[in-house]
Amino acid sequence: MSFLEKYQNIISQSINNFIPDGEPSELYEPMKYILHLGGKRLRPVILLMAYNLFREDIEKAIKPALGIEFFHNFSLIHDDIMDQAPLRRNKKTVHVKYNENTAILSGDALFVKSFQMLEDLEPSLFKPCFELFSKTALEVCEGQQYDMNFETRKEISFEEYIHMITGKTAVLCACAIKMGAIIAKTDKENSDNLYEFGKYLGIAFQLMDDYLDVFGNERMVGKKHAGDIYENKKTILFFLALKRGDEKQIEKLNYWFSIKDDSDTKVNEVINIFKELEVDKMCLELVDSYTNLAKEYLNKVKVSSEKKQSFFELIDYLLLRES
Amino acid sequence: MSFLEKYQNIISQSINNFIPDGEPSELYEPMKYILHLGGKRLRPVILLMAYNLFREDIEKAIKPALGIEFFHNFSLIHDDIMDQAPLRRNKKTVHVKYNENTAILSGDALFVKSFQMLEDLEPSLFKPCFELFSKTALEVCEGQQYDMNFETRKEISFEEYIHMITGKTAVLCACAIKMGAIIAKTDKENSDNLYEFGKYLGIAFQLMDDYLDVFGNERMVGKKHAGDIYENKKTILFFLALKRGDEKQIEKLNYWFSIKDDSDTKVNEVINIFKELEVDKMCLELVDSYTNLAKEYLNKVKVSSEKKQSFFELIDYLLLRES
Repeated sequence: MSFLEKYQNIISQSINNFIPDGEPSELYEPMKYILHLGGKRLRPVILLMAYNLFREDIEKAIKPALGIEFFHNFSLIHDDIMDQAPLRRNKKTVHVKYNENTAILSGDALFVKSFQMLEDLEPSLFKPCFELFSKTALEVCEGQQYDMNFETRKEISFEEYIHMITGKTAVLCACAIKMGAIIAKTDKENSDNLYEFGKYLGIAFQLMDDYLDVFGNERMVGKKHAGDIYENKKTILFFLALKRGDEKQIEKLNYWFSIKDDSDTKVNEVINIFKELEVDKMCLELVDSYTNLAKEYLNKVKVSSEKKQSFFELIDYLLLRES
Repeated sequence: MSFLEKYQNIISQSINNFIPDGEPSELYEPMKYILHLGGKRLRPVILLMAYNLFREDIEKAIKPALGIEFFHNFSLIHDDIMDQAPLRRNKKTVHVKYNENTAILSGDALFVKSFQMLEDLEPSLFKPCFELFSKTALEVCEGQQYDMNFETRKEISFEEYIHMITGKTAVLCACAIKMGAIIAKTDKENSDNLYEFGKYLGIAFQLMDDYLDVFGNERMVGKKHAGDIYENKKTILFFLALKRGDEKQIEKLNYWFSIKDDSDTKVNEVINIFKELEVDKMCLELVDSYTNLAKEYLNKVKVSSEKKQSFFELIDYLLLRES
């Protein structure tokens, strides 16, 4: 998928050029470490793609795109502490490689750096971009808190789950896309429609992630097959199953999600219940319906279909993936 | 000291009006908790005082002043986790009252809120204020990392210690004062001189804090007498003593600062060495010389002596205190 690679290359190159650096090295090394772990760089890529819907001269949008990527990595550093996650992209997480204090503090510093990446924008662009970014950052914190709350709550409604992933994942996609549009100086209607597009794309993407963790191709990189089940992570599959299961199935599910068990038995039992209740199919239907919502908003954007083609290709790439 | 109280009342009232609030409550409660612990509110107060050097209509400067106070409290939440501090102003620290994850995350959210408090400023003021604030925030992170590094390093020079407290304490005072000046739209020369004034005031204040912890009046609120010695916290007194002590004294100091001992013996032994080496006197001389530097810069500010009187009174209040 060459257009995606083109953007990814721009981002990788720019990360090298603008990587946070300074003294004391104990503060900056962890930032460099996580930013060099790689990843698909989707969030900065969609910012550049949104900018390119309206303008060609991409230069101006690059540092803000990196700001989004820095912010995403800051949130990964702190989330990994909270989740006590040992691995990130098959490498040690920051708090494991260094220590927890360093992870808290270099996360904070990377957070500052992410906002600083907007500082080259002219004042009239800087302010709306900052306001969008800070509002989003707060929603991401709220989403993460909901996610932590859900660990100890028994019943979570479908709406509550969608609200949580909207904060934790979708709003940052929406923010990235809208910021690209703002920097390209398109009108409010276009940038608002692109925000909604990004939000529904983000929700669909996260639901697909939940699905693929359990039902995806096992050749995945950086994640264990059904890792969410091993780790008792309650995803949309779990909540759909709770809603549809009979008493016995619910009891079984609650049992398996309350114990630590690294054997295959647990995963197989849980997957069987998921399949009996057809939550795999339901999840894919949800992905479809959020994707359609996303497309509706993309269609509303007043720019040629030709220009929008790359976003339609991106949707297929993200949502027809097998891992 | 009635003028100080006047400003403190404005800040307390405004904190009540603009206290962060929202859902989920687990995220917002800890922010409210720490912001209601009180304190002298010096940082927002000096922002308002700096604004009042040039203009009377204080309204515009209040939310940015709260932003500085929010940021200060965010840094306290995260620092207290890193230092494993049980108490803050005689009350439980956030990570003890709630838990560490909540403290990390509500700290992050309060950090966002602190920057958002600038958002009412017009774009041409917003950008320079944000740039000053973000640069300061990064320096505060750097200062905290140096502080953590010093815990395990044997020799720290006087210059390194001053550099550390400049980051950890002084630049936020400098930032607060300069921001007040920027919002009042004075010229660059004035706001730069006020920055230097705030920085040296902050250094003098921190050195006085180090002094008072050990040699201050014991009727202090919220702190244990010589708490720094009990907690093996290496302050300017320790580093001055290391520089001036003979082999035997240095050995003793290093011994006492390497063990946990809650008896009076440790504190008395350490205080004796400090007194033998006259580091208490040296510390007060340092406070004096940084205070004089601060006054020099304050004198340079092009505004009537009458207007500056409140700052001179503040200096006396902060640096002639006994606790």
